Amino acid sequence: MIRHTVVFALKHAKDSAEEAKFLEDAKVLIEIPGVEKFEQLRQVSAKNDYDFGFSMEFADQATYDAYNAHPKHVAFVEGRWIPEVDRFMEIDYVAL
Amino acid sequence: MIRHTVVFALKHAKDSAEEAKFLEDAKVLIEIPGVEKFEQLRQVSAKNDYDFGFSMEFADQATYDAYNAHPKHVAFVEGRWIPEVDRFMEIDYVAL
Repeated sequence: MIRHTVVFALKHAKDSAEEAKFLEDAKVLIEIPGVEKFEQLRQVSAKNDYDFGFSMEFADQATYDAYNAHPKHVAFVEGRWIPEVDRFMEIDYVAL
Repeated sequence: MIRHTVVFALKHAKDSAEEAKFLEDAKVLIEIPGVEKFEQLRQVSAKNDYDFGFSMEFADQATYDAYNAHPKHVAFVEGRWIPEVDRFMEIDYVAL
């Protein structure tokens, strides 16, 4: 199991319609084969500067690689993520 | 539900006995009331500079606050975390 997470902040104003639409449209990622336990999260610690997080799990690295290369993922990154996300950090975990 | 996570790197050499002991001794945190779904994780993304993660969940903010103030947590932070952790970032999530 690989847990892929990304913590991020949007360029949009907080609680704006654009923010809500980005989060809603990001659910397209659930449709990509191999995505398990997809979660959309609000980041609430005052000790960092991010507002949201996505978390998902893949059975193995090959499934993760296929997700990254999937046309729906590529289209989301190019069409929505890059234009609308202000800052982000990816953190990926496996069991210790 | 509040998911408290911390991603971090140790001062110890990779795969050292000191590293293993830190991770083993950190399991004391499981004993603190209110800690649920405690996980020790290896951080594997090349896109950040951290090596490990801990994740746990609390039912609510009051339980989280009690964890932070618990003597076993305070002792772990002062006696092990501060001396042995080189860098870290806390990320806390709630459901969106």
